[in-house]
Amino acid sequence: MPELRRDPVVGRWVIISTERSRRPSDFATAPVRPQTIDPCVFCPGQESRTPEEILAVRTPGSAPNGPGWELRVVPNKFPALRIEGELEPAGEGVYDRMNGIGAHEVIIETPDHNASLAGLPETQVVTVLEAWRQRMVDLQKDARFEYVSVFKNHGEAAGASLEHPHSQLIATPIVPTMVEQELEGALRHFRMKKRCIWCDIIRQEMQGKGHGLGRLILGEGGFLALCPYAPRFPFETWILPESHRSSYEDALGTDRQALARVLGELLRRMNQVLGDPPWNLSLHSAPLRSPTLDHFHWHLEIIPKVTKVAGFEWGTGFFINPTPPEEAARYLRAGQSRVT
Amino acid sequence: MPELRRDPVVGRWVIISTERSRRPSDFATAPVRPQTIDPCVFCPGQESRTPEEILAVRTPGSAPNGPGWELRVVPNKFPALRIEGELEPAGEGVYDRMNGIGAHEVIIETPDHNASLAGLPETQVVTVLEAWRQRMVDLQKDARFEYVSVFKNHGEAAGASLEHPHSQLIATPIVPTMVEQELEGALRHFRMKKRCIWCDIIRQEMQGKGHGLGRLILGEGGFLALCPYAPRFPFETWILPESHRSSYEDALGTDRQALARVLGELLRRMNQVLGDPPWNLSLHSAPLRSPTLDHFHWHLEIIPKVTKVAGFEWGTGFFINPTPPEEAARYLRAGQSRVT
Repeated sequence: MPELRRDPVVGRWVIISTERSRRPSDFATAPVRPQTIDPCVFCPGQESRTPEEILAVRTPGSAPNGPGWELRVVPNKFPALRIEGELEPAGEGVYDRMNGIGAHEVIIETPDHNASLAGLPETQVVTVLEAWRQRMVDLQKDARFEYVSVFKNHGEAAGASLEHPHSQLIATPIVPTMVEQELEGALRHFRMKKRCIWCDIIRQEMQGKGHGLGRLILGEGGFLALCPYAPRFPFETWILPESHRSSYEDALGTDRQALARVLGELLRRMNQVLGDPPWNLSLHSAPLRSPTLDHFHWHLEIIPKVTKVAGFEWGTGFFINPTPPEEAARYLRAGQSRVT
Repeated sequence: MPELRRDPVVGRWVIISTERSRRPSDFATAPVRPQTIDPCVFCPGQESRTPEEILAVRTPGSAPNGPGWELRVVPNKFPALRIEGELEPAGEGVYDRMNGIGAHEVIIETPDHNASLAGLPETQVVTVLEAWRQRMVDLQKDARFEYVSVFKNHGEAAGASLEHPHSQLIATPIVPTMVEQELEGALRHFRMKKRCIWCDIIRQEMQGKGHGLGRLILGEGGFLALCPYAPRFPFETWILPESHRSSYEDALGTDRQALARVLGELLRRMNQVLGDPPWNLSLHSAPLRSPTLDHFHWHLEIIPKVTKVAGFEWGTGFFINPTPPEEAARYLRAGQSRVT
């Protein structure tokens, strides 16, 4: 019997369609590799072909914008928004607009063209997580920006146009719709219950642990990976800190290593189960310069791209998901016993 | 300079990224044709392979579930929701669910396997529009359903799994998120201004007519096709009745022919400009059994699938659109002078 489920944060209903249930091997995913531009602009030795680096982790003594780096952050050469100028909000009848001020940066995660985030050594994943944090801390000094969205497209079908491992960030003068909706839903819950909705979710999911129908995948060092109750997509996964933290950039501290371990382990299991699928990752953190928020809990959302989004989804905002999250979590837990 | 624009109905901001602006010929679209199952289950002579027909337009004297039809409506053989049973809403801690009750039907638009909605004779498009209406009128008698979503996926990349021309409908016990958001945004506008937001949009767009930067594409017989101010996708288009109407099923009346003409003409121009792209269509109408709503205005949304949706969009709800709607409308108007 199919089931309708409501996401407790944003209130979005999804259809878990067991009639159409599919095993992981039924998902034929597109090959991950986007077109190679030879030689790759993100590779060592090609530094002059990117805009000048904003941040880099370098061998002592190596010069900026040359080889000798472990990670580089550079402005996107084809930015969706422009960094220069003052914000100019304007209206025209029923319409509102703003000039497209923002930052669009690329985090080149490793000098190794053929690596992938799932396969990087844990220390290198820590370097990536730390680069995200440093850029958020730096960009929040710019009063024009309200939000920094960190995201990653892995594989051509997930929107990656270059295969060299990289993530991106876009700083915007506006808090994105989806984060707004999370903030509103979470505040509503907090006002009623005086509790963070994600903390409630974690408590409830932890009580289900060991149970055959659980949605927990793994937990380690204060981080949990789980399949949400009302996922839009098959094998959609969240990673959250077990304790309440509203901002990624303030809270990461000494936990980086545990987060790197959970993220790497989850991606490797996803690759095992789904055969190296394309995927998207996005970081949801509190808006820049927020005080500590009692109602918001930062988290990573990871979505393998194994199904097509069609007219029903675009027209209604309803999603039909053929894989119950309990089943996805069971596959992702399989053969492992790291849920503590 | 890129621009941030806000949709006046739902408040969603989009990035119109002129830096990445592309001409229609730059969009390489996937081939439209999904895999052919030979012989096709929707073709004449194969009627016994679908569930029994719910509605059909037939040659006088022809028997149900046999050949001799112009259009058939049948239950989806692999429904996302099931028609049998009582609604059973249930809670479990922070989570809410409901058994998956609903109707999922397929409208087989023509006996001609190789036709397409863009190329059908106007009278046949009228038959399709009328079938949508009749099914909505019938399904609203079922008190379990709050909404009927009518949609169409054209081409494999748009989610169509069978190439024989067909549209679909899903009746749900819940009003879809996106329609809820439209209803809320529109009610907010109406409470402030005592005017329908879509009527305001139409008035404003009509004033811009003849202007080089207009977003109107064509207008005829009381229907307008236009590119919305803040579209998520390149060449996204709306078709609306010029006069205020909240429910598709109540209001269509004698206007069906004009709507069929505008829809057909728009699809043919889209095919010309973008080279027969895959696309999605969805009908937004007031919830079932609504009284006439002063704040809601039914409309069709048509989205050619020419770009990939990536991590930024899924994570934030922000969309980056490389084609300003003024430019899309200019292409779709070109060589034509039917805007009255």
